[in-house]
Amino acid sequence: MQRVSYGTLYDALLRVLLKLGFRQDRAALCARLFAETSRDGVYSHGLNRFPRFVEMIRGGVIDVEAEPVRVGRFGALERWDGRQGPGNLNAYACMDRAVTLAQSHGLGCVALRNTNHWMRGGSYGWQAAEAGAVGLCWTNTMPNLPSWGARDCKIGNNPVILAVPRPEGHVVLDMAMSQFSYGALAGYRRRGLSLPVDGGFDEEGRLTRDAAAIEASGRPLPVGYWKGSGLAIMLDVVAALLSGGLATHQITPEPLKETALSQVFIAIHPAAFNDEEAGTQTVNGVLDFVHSATPAREGEAVYYPGERTLATRKANLENGIPVEPSIWQEVLAMGDGGL
Amino acid sequence: MQRVSYGTLYDALLRVLLKLGFRQDRAALCARLFAETSRDGVYSHGLNRFPRFVEMIRGGVIDVEAEPVRVGRFGALERWDGRQGPGNLNAYACMDRAVTLAQSHGLGCVALRNTNHWMRGGSYGWQAAEAGAVGLCWTNTMPNLPSWGARDCKIGNNPVILAVPRPEGHVVLDMAMSQFSYGALAGYRRRGLSLPVDGGFDEEGRLTRDAAAIEASGRPLPVGYWKGSGLAIMLDVVAALLSGGLATHQITPEPLKETALSQVFIAIHPAAFNDEEAGTQTVNGVLDFVHSATPAREGEAVYYPGERTLATRKANLENGIPVEPSIWQEVLAMGDGGL
Repeated sequence: MQRVSYGTLYDALLRVLLKLGFRQDRAALCARLFAETSRDGVYSHGLNRFPRFVEMIRGGVIDVEAEPVRVGRFGALERWDGRQGPGNLNAYACMDRAVTLAQSHGLGCVALRNTNHWMRGGSYGWQAAEAGAVGLCWTNTMPNLPSWGARDCKIGNNPVILAVPRPEGHVVLDMAMSQFSYGALAGYRRRGLSLPVDGGFDEEGRLTRDAAAIEASGRPLPVGYWKGSGLAIMLDVVAALLSGGLATHQITPEPLKETALSQVFIAIHPAAFNDEEAGTQTVNGVLDFVHSATPAREGEAVYYPGERTLATRKANLENGIPVEPSIWQEVLAMGDGGL
Repeated sequence: MQRVSYGTLYDALLRVLLKLGFRQDRAALCARLFAETSRDGVYSHGLNRFPRFVEMIRGGVIDVEAEPVRVGRFGALERWDGRQGPGNLNAYACMDRAVTLAQSHGLGCVALRNTNHWMRGGSYGWQAAEAGAVGLCWTNTMPNLPSWGARDCKIGNNPVILAVPRPEGHVVLDMAMSQFSYGALAGYRRRGLSLPVDGGFDEEGRLTRDAAAIEASGRPLPVGYWKGSGLAIMLDVVAALLSGGLATHQITPEPLKETALSQVFIAIHPAAFNDEEAGTQTVNGVLDFVHSATPAREGEAVYYPGERTLATRKANLENGIPVEPSIWQEVLAMGDGGL
């Protein structure tokens, strides 16, 4: 496995983005968000996703110059139009705005429509926590998951993120609505491994741990069967309703044409009550208790959300970020003029 | 199965609550919340739960006279102290307050501490939707669920509710963090049925559909394994942090002494943007699409969250609400002076 430093990865991405016509500051933020995603171990949505991002820019689906504009406001609730700009820049701007609203109103909500895939949703949770806010955000997607009881894909694998600031390292949950992503399924298949738990149905409609059988049937499981299925529906309804944008069923179900997504960004300002020290103790108390559990299997540990991300981040900053050589060469070539 | 009318059930509960010292208006609301819960088919938290509620009042855990008071405010974010009053009255008051805040600020959040079990969490989702608001609320609980990878209970089965108003019937998700409640497990065991999917671990640590084996091991599964486990932790952290109240690990792990819970109530006012008609079309569009799915098994249907609740409500209003005869007699006797 090849490894590159964070700075090397960032510079390579920045070079390509500038070539693609991104303004300097926007290229810098976009490169940072992609590089941080790989740094944190979410490889599927960092460097590995970048070639597809570039392809969607070249295909006219993502407009590198478009910036989000506010189209509605009422107190601490705002509606923005993403104008099909880069999804990660739009999402970052909207969480930033939600945090600003929270600082004046206690909490704030920005509903964003007409945006593109935000890449790693967790980025905006870490962002809120870094600004001292509790962050809650979610996005809809194209229809790509069967609801509970259905054979075909009529709901989105809509991820939800919940983040809490903490001086010793933020606590961040980034949770999609399928038990395993297609990326994860492919990984198990390639390594010839069985899934640790049932991940979907086979062609005969039986629950299975066979990743290839799930890829073939196109029927991965929603998290918690009927529960995650219901939650995916609710997240889509609320995102489309508050943003005035498209719902899952209106989004083109082709990966390279998936656009005009709807998202919600909520920030809450816990420092409003001026007891930050007590708050930190509260958060640490929960995490200590979680850690105090007796592991189900000897020698294993129990983690809190975000804990392994922080460990991966540290390791990747020390040892370099693992990159897929073919994708890394492809991105380097784009920056060298082969765009 | 004995059935009683909604009015009969309500009157019986009201009589007991007045005897217990509830003020008239508070007794009326409390009786309504219990009766509506049975009416809607959530039998575990309606009439069937009422004797335990009475026992906790007699045990001094629930103070029938205590009303919640605001202890902090910053814009649209407020902190309330439930003063160990009846959990359903406290929760209703806080969702009501969140809706009021949302009407002036676009959205509002009330964090409540020191409250008691809210009974059916969905009640406050239906309440928000009835008031025209998107409602989001959750509670923590005593430690009663093993986190993913743990043998012992270090997290709470913290339910989360998300509700959207709709003229033709609201859309409401009420989702606890265990795949099956202990009440559901007992039901499968009594009927000699296997769970439809794995519901927990047996004593040897194997995933199982045997309800009795899960009851014996005390290891029900979190929704989505590691995902629901992480979400339960986050909900606890945020509720305790925002309310300044207790977290799961600080709550007495005995059902009759479980008190001083922390909860969060968020309401968002979609009418802020004056496009309610478009909003209704958006919600209906999602539900129509969900319904258009091909069922996985011929003859079965795909439902949206709250759809079956509305059907049960209608049937129970027409045919009477099913009651467990022994519990019904017990409650009637309480009202007749046998308290």
